[in-house]
Amino acid sequence: MKVRVAVLGATGTVGQRFIQLLDGHPWFEVAAVVGSERSAGRTYGEAARWVLDTPMPAPVRAMTVLGDVARLDTPLVFSALPSKTAGSIESRLASEGHIVCSNASDHRMDADVPLLIPEVNPDHLELIEVQRRRRGWTGAIVTNPNCTATGPTMALRPLHDAFGVTKLLLVSMQALSGAGYPGVPSYDAVDNVVPYIGGEEPKVETEPQKMLGAVRDGAIEPAPFVISAHCNRVPVLEGHLICMSVSFARRPILDELTATLRGWRALPQELNLPSAPPQPIIVRDEPERPQTRRDRDAGRGMSTTVGRVRECPILDYKFVCLSHNTIRGAAGGSLLNAELMYAQGMFR
Amino acid sequence: MKVRVAVLGATGTVGQRFIQLLDGHPWFEVAAVVGSERSAGRTYGEAARWVLDTPMPAPVRAMTVLGDVARLDTPLVFSALPSKTAGSIESRLASEGHIVCSNASDHRMDADVPLLIPEVNPDHLELIEVQRRRRGWTGAIVTNPNCTATGPTMALRPLHDAFGVTKLLLVSMQALSGAGYPGVPSYDAVDNVVPYIGGEEPKVETEPQKMLGAVRDGAIEPAPFVISAHCNRVPVLEGHLICMSVSFARRPILDELTATLRGWRALPQELNLPSAPPQPIIVRDEPERPQTRRDRDAGRGMSTTVGRVRECPILDYKFVCLSHNTIRGAAGGSLLNAELMYAQGMFR
Amino acid sequence: MKVRVAVLGATGTVGQRFIQLLDGHPWFEVAAVVGSERSAGRTYGEAARWVLDTPMPAPVRAMTVLGDVARLDTPLVFSALPSKTAGSIESRLASEGHIVCSNASDHRMDADVPLLIPEVNPDHLELIEVQRRRRGWTGAIVTNPNCTATGPTMALRPLHDAFGVTKLLLVSMQALSGAGYPGVPSYDAVDNVVPYIGGEEPKVETEPQKMLGAVRDGAIEPAPFVISAHCNRVPVLEGHLICMSVSFARRPILDELTATLRGWRALPQELNLPSAPPQPIIVRDEPERPQTRRDRDAGRGMSTTVGRVRECPILDYKFVCLSHNTIRGAAGGSLLNAELMYAQGMFR
Amino acid sequence: MKVRVAVLGATGTVGQRFIQLLDGHPWFEVAAVVGSERSAGRTYGEAARWVLDTPMPAPVRAMTVLGDVARLDTPLVFSALPSKTAGSIESRLASEGHIVCSNASDHRMDADVPLLIPEVNPDHLELIEVQRRRRGWTGAIVTNPNCTATGPTMALRPLHDAFGVTKLLLVSMQALSGAGYPGVPSYDAVDNVVPYIGGEEPKVETEPQKMLGAVRDGAIEPAPFVISAHCNRVPVLEGHLICMSVSFARRPILDELTATLRGWRALPQELNLPSAPPQPIIVRDEPERPQTRRDRDAGRGMSTTVGRVRECPILDYKFVCLSHNTIRGAAGGSLLNAELMYAQGMFR
Repeated sequence: MKVRVAVLGATGTVGQRFIQLLDGHPWFEVAAVVGSERSAGRTYGEAARWVLDTPMPAPVRAMTVLGDVARLDTPLVFSALPSKTAGSIESRLASEGHIVCSNASDHRMDADVPLLIPEVNPDHLELIEVQRRRRGWTGAIVTNPNCTATGPTMALRPLHDAFGVTKLLLVSMQALSGAGYPGVPSYDAVDNVVPYIGGEEPKVETEPQKMLGAVRDGAIEPAPFVISAHCNRVPVLEGHLICMSVSFARRPILDELTATLRGWRALPQELNLPSAPPQPIIVRDEPERPQTRRDRDAGRGMSTTVGRVRECPILDYKFVCLSHNTIRGAAGGSLLNAELMYAQGMFR
Repeated sequence: MKVRVAVLGATGTVGQRFIQLLDGHPWFEVAAVVGSERSAGRTYGEAARWVLDTPMPAPVRAMTVLGDVARLDTPLVFSALPSKTAGSIESRLASEGHIVCSNASDHRMDADVPLLIPEVNPDHLELIEVQRRRRGWTGAIVTNPNCTATGPTMALRPLHDAFGVTKLLLVSMQALSGAGYPGVPSYDAVDNVVPYIGGEEPKVETEPQKMLGAVRDGAIEPAPFVISAHCNRVPVLEGHLICMSVSFARRPILDELTATLRGWRALPQELNLPSAPPQPIIVRDEPERPQTRRDRDAGRGMSTTVGRVRECPILDYKFVCLSHNTIRGAAGGSLLNAELMYAQGMFR
Repeated sequence: MKVRVAVLGATGTVGQRFIQLLDGHPWFEVAAVVGSERSAGRTYGEAARWVLDTPMPAPVRAMTVLGDVARLDTPLVFSALPSKTAGSIESRLASEGHIVCSNASDHRMDADVPLLIPEVNPDHLELIEVQRRRRGWTGAIVTNPNCTATGPTMALRPLHDAFGVTKLLLVSMQALSGAGYPGVPSYDAVDNVVPYIGGEEPKVETEPQKMLGAVRDGAIEPAPFVISAHCNRVPVLEGHLICMSVSFARRPILDELTATLRGWRALPQELNLPSAPPQPIIVRDEPERPQTRRDRDAGRGMSTTVGRVRECPILDYKFVCLSHNTIRGAAGGSLLNAELMYAQGMFR
Repeated sequence: MKVRVAVLGATGTVGQRFIQLLDGHPWFEVAAVVGSERSAGRTYGEAARWVLDTPMPAPVRAMTVLGDVARLDTPLVFSALPSKTAGSIESRLASEGHIVCSNASDHRMDADVPLLIPEVNPDHLELIEVQRRRRGWTGAIVTNPNCTATGPTMALRPLHDAFGVTKLLLVSMQALSGAGYPGVPSYDAVDNVVPYIGGEEPKVETEPQKMLGAVRDGAIEPAPFVISAHCNRVPVLEGHLICMSVSFARRPILDELTATLRGWRALPQELNLPSAPPQPIIVRDEPERPQTRRDRDAGRGMSTTVGRVRECPILDYKFVCLSHNTIRGAAGGSLLNAELMYAQGMFR
């Protein structure tokens, strides 16, 4: 018997990724799809303008899209709702006993809501008790970070543990899919770089510190380092490539740094979660890798690929980091969060 | 009577830009085109696979391509030769009395060769006397910088004068045309970012200090700041967009910084050189500008556009800087160098 | 004294092209810009999200956008309104005495409305008398054809006159700009071809016959040939490239056909209209031309470029035809229509 | 025990596709990789600049590249050699007893060489006897068609059987990968269409008639219809999209035509060959499908997708046809040929 799940915002691009990644999942099965009022009552096949490159899964195609969450009875809910809309709906569902794994930004920085990457901070799930106690909920909300914060945070986890990160300057080259659908007009995208993404830099400059922070007395003490982010949109379909310069409390030698990244394994790998990549961080030695198109699907889109590790004349080291923004950085990240909670018996 | 000029490497992409920019030039006219042995003896129209978006200028189309520089008699020579090849040919021509304005990297870091951006360091032309004395030449070599170093160096000139640059961390998103023709295979370019450009970062990390250095006793004392560069190839045709974080000896307030950039005028503007843009640095206030495609042609490809000026949590300020890589960063830069020398009576 | 003109739909992409092309026009000057209710009352600089690659013309930037046409007093009005909206507004303006040059499709196939390309069917302006008589108007509506119909119709004019076109099969590869702004989502455009453009094929299969038809007794007798069109969207910014196979009543030899295209000059060239290209049809001999990016700007975007003329094993001849879709195929076409009417004294 | 195979031209793009598709193949295993003299003696991992988006298969990475075919002992050889080079090498191998499945064009139109698509003309394998008798070979050469001819020929097979094709006019929009690597320079590809591919149209206008021809007395009588092809290069990575207009001896009604395409199954499906797609032709009903990026991988790149079936005002019907050019149109096609021969006991 698989766990029945609902997908909110199911017709959007992140919603579609949830549907795609849940197709044939060993533990979960899609039991409800929730969309806008306009979609309500139509089949998913009619309501969704399917934009992914694999076919729409047949079982979902025939499902009727629900227009609200009034009668949701699935223990697990994935939220691909747009920010602003997401907050209150997710709260309501958590209060009604649902486990809500959300890709929306609304609750990410709430003091009692885990901002979770299972390899990075599985212990932050402790916050759920605080969350329930404080809010009187029987369910819970767990969020995954902004797509651009995800890869760097994964790369920093083992480095922070070993050497203590003090500064991070990053410049992103982000994919078009990150803006959703219809998202970036093609007339803005082709033969162009747009050096601005509304609201992105503040998220990237604060979410990693929460994730790399420690839980103390039911609260998170953010990791005390500083981030400066420049975010850019470049004409690629999927995959956020990020140039990073980092300083450490204890500066390692270069081989120590790469060995630390390469050797890192974490809880999802130990637990062998269905969506966990065998290797959370892949380090490439070829000078011209990772490349966005050729490496974004590493670990079925769940690995972070690092390359060009070298000294930085200003901070300590610099390197390149690539992460799939709509898989690991959105639906896949949220799904792995749910898998971790399920494996730990937090719902059934 | 216009000054007769020769173009070396005339059939390549930078060579084509020279031909294009010299078409209808008020002071100079193309009198000789030099190519590879394979091209020698054919007309330029036959030998050049013209790749630019404007038509090949009619007068050059019919010229016979020369296979070597043996009998060049033009006072002025523009060199679009590939590095390695360029060095000895340019030296020979200078020794024979030609003024050589070169886009090649071979002589850029020679102690007695000006690495020139007319707005930035026109006083470096003093080195020519040293060069002639030391080498016994009657001509001279003057070089322009690497395309990726050009825009940032222009932006730094007024800032360095006013506030003293101490650190520069930059991440480039460079155009495909920078690799010449055939250059980057399309199968590597479409839907991809390649985070590596062979040999680029060392140039970008050293050329600006030479240009912003001071001439003392016939030698250049490089400006004493540190640069860290990450260079990336993105799928755009023309225009290098660069994210910069900068620190200063005396940290200005933000308005001071933008006013300094905006108000800057330099010698080429005073002299009203034919290729000088009215405004060397354009500062945009809209959050999403400059954009590669929409701003690369500012000042007919000769202006540098700066935008998104804001505080950097790690260095002092960060901003975006855009420069046309094959106009200001190559042929147009070299042409402006020649115009400056001509205006100052250094040849006729 | 220039003729004062208004632009309807001024903030959209075709509206922006009108503003761009009218900047510095020798006969016309923009006196009013009309937009949606949302834009009304704001300056054009605030209301328009300017998407073109040249700067917004300064005089228009400061104009206040009008929300309706209630008090328009310009003799000439350019309409870049969306279809459906355009029809009644244009009729109203014509009834009030304005000359309306429209890019919208609503009135194109009206029996008494000229569907005009000045090189192709300037005599169709005779219909204006019919139009005025029938409708009781003091002004008039003149339309320009669909962007995809434009290039082929120009190429067919001299061929039809000389050899009698009987069949035309065409396959278009159309630019992203043809869909307006925001238009095609980049997630649909990059690394993709979409073989469908809603409503396009019926227009392309009927408009050319009207334009190549003869005026008889105040009505147009359409040219009696058949067209089959396949319309595709490809990832290019501007320029519709079209593969055409054509049959003739009298099959010419190949040289006759190319000479006919090449030698053709028409009324706008004779009258030396400001926007008329010196050569309406450019024939290229190189096998790989025309290319979309390299040839779309020929004749400042007003020429049609033809290449690869060769025999077709099924119809008589096949060739490639390129036309700039937002210049000749939209705003520039409409502007040339107005220039023809002005040159013929139809308004002042 | 799997059949040992060699790949010729193994380091090129089609060679890489062979390596990729043979990874984990149930019947065949790569035993030898042959490259240019320059690659000889190096490991495949060193010699090949791997350009595909999946990782290089580990077992092949360590193989030593052979510089010639002198000591090849594999019963089966896949040839990804460039045309001109391929001919004599393939003949030599066939004379020495190898089964050569070739993607090269050299032998395609030889009277006694099957030009094979297993779904289309499996009976053409009869020619092998003729080939052996005539040439005194113990091995054999079997070729697959040009990538652009492949999809249309698959679509025509059931139509030709049912209604008799008489005319085919097609316009292709071909992927960049079709030109190999480095292939098309990115400076020619981005924001551009090139309406010419050297040597392509003659192949597309003759190969389908051979494949749809009948074997009579040991020779092929080509199908007696006429093809006119316009071939274009568009900026997509993989997948040739083709607009087709077709006439028939007996004109079907539209539903008959689509039912014929949809219902078609052929020998590879019956035999359940490992690379055979469940459905050779997929017919899409949505007006905007197939799309290059979203449908090229249908049937793991081995299905042909047809859409927009409708009447043609000039020929009988028109539709769109999409086929993956480096899978079904090259390495995958050749592999399926080998699978068919193996299943029929032609080698072991």
